[in-house]
Amino acid sequence: MLGNFTYCNPTKLYFGKDALDGLNEELPKYGKNVLLVYGGGSIKSNGVYDKVIKILKDNGKNVFEDAGVMPNPTSEKLNEGLARAKAAKADLILAVGGGSVCDYAKAVSVSVNCNDDPWDKYFIRFEEPACKIIPVGCVLTMVGTGSEMNGGSVITNREQKLKIGHVFGENVFPKFSVLNPEFTFTVPKEQMVSGIYDIMSHILEQYFSGMDDNTSDYIMEGLLRSLIHSANIAVENPTDYEARSNIMWTATWALNTLVAKGKTTDWMVHMLGQAVAAHTDATHGMTLAAVSIPYYRRILPYGLKKFARYAVNVWGVNPEGKTQIKVAEEGLLAMEEWMKKIGLTMNLTALGATEQMLDGIVKSTLIMDGGYKVLDENDVRAVLKASF
Amino acid sequence: MLGNFTYCNPTKLYFGKDALDGLNEELPKYGKNVLLVYGGGSIKSNGVYDKVIKILKDNGKNVFEDAGVMPNPTSEKLNEGLARAKAAKADLILAVGGGSVCDYAKAVSVSVNCNDDPWDKYFIRFEEPACKIIPVGCVLTMVGTGSEMNGGSVITNREQKLKIGHVFGENVFPKFSVLNPEFTFTVPKEQMVSGIYDIMSHILEQYFSGMDDNTSDYIMEGLLRSLIHSANIAVENPTDYEARSNIMWTATWALNTLVAKGKTTDWMVHMLGQAVAAHTDATHGMTLAAVSIPYYRRILPYGLKKFARYAVNVWGVNPEGKTQIKVAEEGLLAMEEWMKKIGLTMNLTALGATEQMLDGIVKSTLIMDGGYKVLDENDVRAVLKASF
Repeated sequence: MLGNFTYCNPTKLYFGKDALDGLNEELPKYGKNVLLVYGGGSIKSNGVYDKVIKILKDNGKNVFEDAGVMPNPTSEKLNEGLARAKAAKADLILAVGGGSVCDYAKAVSVSVNCNDDPWDKYFIRFEEPACKIIPVGCVLTMVGTGSEMNGGSVITNREQKLKIGHVFGENVFPKFSVLNPEFTFTVPKEQMVSGIYDIMSHILEQYFSGMDDNTSDYIMEGLLRSLIHSANIAVENPTDYEARSNIMWTATWALNTLVAKGKTTDWMVHMLGQAVAAHTDATHGMTLAAVSIPYYRRILPYGLKKFARYAVNVWGVNPEGKTQIKVAEEGLLAMEEWMKKIGLTMNLTALGATEQMLDGIVKSTLIMDGGYKVLDENDVRAVLKASF
Repeated sequence: MLGNFTYCNPTKLYFGKDALDGLNEELPKYGKNVLLVYGGGSIKSNGVYDKVIKILKDNGKNVFEDAGVMPNPTSEKLNEGLARAKAAKADLILAVGGGSVCDYAKAVSVSVNCNDDPWDKYFIRFEEPACKIIPVGCVLTMVGTGSEMNGGSVITNREQKLKIGHVFGENVFPKFSVLNPEFTFTVPKEQMVSGIYDIMSHILEQYFSGMDDNTSDYIMEGLLRSLIHSANIAVENPTDYEARSNIMWTATWALNTLVAKGKTTDWMVHMLGQAVAAHTDATHGMTLAAVSIPYYRRILPYGLKKFARYAVNVWGVNPEGKTQIKVAEEGLLAMEEWMKKIGLTMNLTALGATEQMLDGIVKSTLIMDGGYKVLDENDVRAVLKASF
């Protein structure tokens, strides 16, 4: 564990088939006005909406609604949401949905009492909130982003073709999150698989950085093995409660700040994926899947030891009698085959990207410096080209 | 992840060489009267005491002291401590030391404003605190118990020959803990090794229970591998910062409630070890070490699959062409050899126990029912006999 760090994660989690009952414990802590934030209405067809409304009413709340949060929530929608929260005099923002809805709720929560334009303030200038933050609670219906227990919020500006994440401090973390694996059963299989790769990518972005032999590295290998194990079961049987619940729990711990403590991190796959999404509006996890293998093949020589360790400890590659590079390559090959097997989209064309967009995507790609090689524009172009 | 559970761990951790600076952020949150709790005075010889006192004074605190907390803090000492905290009108209890000091501080914190006898209320009747709890902060100088980020508190009643732990809820968790690995450098090697085994035992008590294939199991395998790796380095070179810091971090995550979520747990090794300590006052980790292998050999047939998994995933036993029982036994053998190698005490005689004490220790052993076999008195006696 290198360097100095602080760790604090105050989010209270209610997990399991009865997790929604946790709302009865949490709601009395807040005022009467609740802004219910959700997406395209799937929570109405799967019954979660009705259950949540009943508990809100039973707890005597005034419910205001902000529906239509899109998979890549936009800065325009954010402005609409903060106006709604202001009009509602919201005491609590209750996000019911996946990571996009939680991300959006957090962005609204720090913007309601802030006079600046939130896109400029938080996503371009990366400033911290100085205003009163509206508390947020989440009821998760889709798994992947880890947004239910962290300060992350990703917003897309369609005009500027930028999708940018701000990692806020613990004062912006959800106060509570409800994690019922059964609420994720109705998610279409493609989205489930996309979420699974989002989780894997979160772990790998933190794993493939630095060469120290850190407790976090061992924890991440455990999370990866658990994820692969449960994903294999869930792909065959999406209503396997045990598998879905382990995936849900792994997602939370993959990105609730724990495994990044005391080590450096990369995040270049997310920068590439987010640039793709800003031009195509493609599903987050799929954009990550499409660029990952080309990216990791390109940086492999610079992080050889760690890629070889990954091959052995996560993919069970037998290293006997093989060079380190051979072991490392076999690991990436095993990963690639597994990704195809579970049904991930492995190229940008299938996500709606065209070669004509290449220059624009390159331009939209923010360069991070925590990985094994700091990419230059040529690298970015080459990785993206190899992803078509 | 079986069943319903809640997770909330609000303790703020300051980790690293500059971690003590965290006190300057925390102290202003509390009133003027601080009860400084510590043990036998090693913090005076290693300089930690002076550093803490300076920061307390710089923050304008009135410092009251409660020294002499023993390795197995007693109910008599607890009564003394609560009287001191009452007299000081303590706004904050600052524990500077190892797990015993933290445990003791928590026991005092829930007893100051409680009219009942705290031993009877919390450790015999296992009641929850209904009174105002004094906030606790910790500065850790010895690693093992995980008390810095949980609600655990173990107190010994010498007269009744009972050493009993109460696991309090999150309202009793330390508000903050300071984790500077360098503060642990002066701990005698035997105590370092004892702490290392305490960590291992915490993980194993939670691992060897249930047969589900849980994310927690994978995380625990990671923690165990990290612990073994760093322990091997620390035993050779106790001032290896990296190794000691990884051990410190592993200790915290081994027992801060995370890995027990969604699964059953055992804790029978701790029950046996605590019974030994109640009769001998032996070091906690060493009592666990002395009884572990005999206990695990006895329950192995009932948890065969998990013991075989442990052998392969933690100790690297090659399962090819071997029966499950052979694999499982090889795992325990590897563990036993490693325990001897790092210098653990492997029998009760060396801890001051005599065969004459056997009846008394058997009588002091509380039986838990979460392991692979619920022991009867014969089992307890047999395990203890095999530990001599």
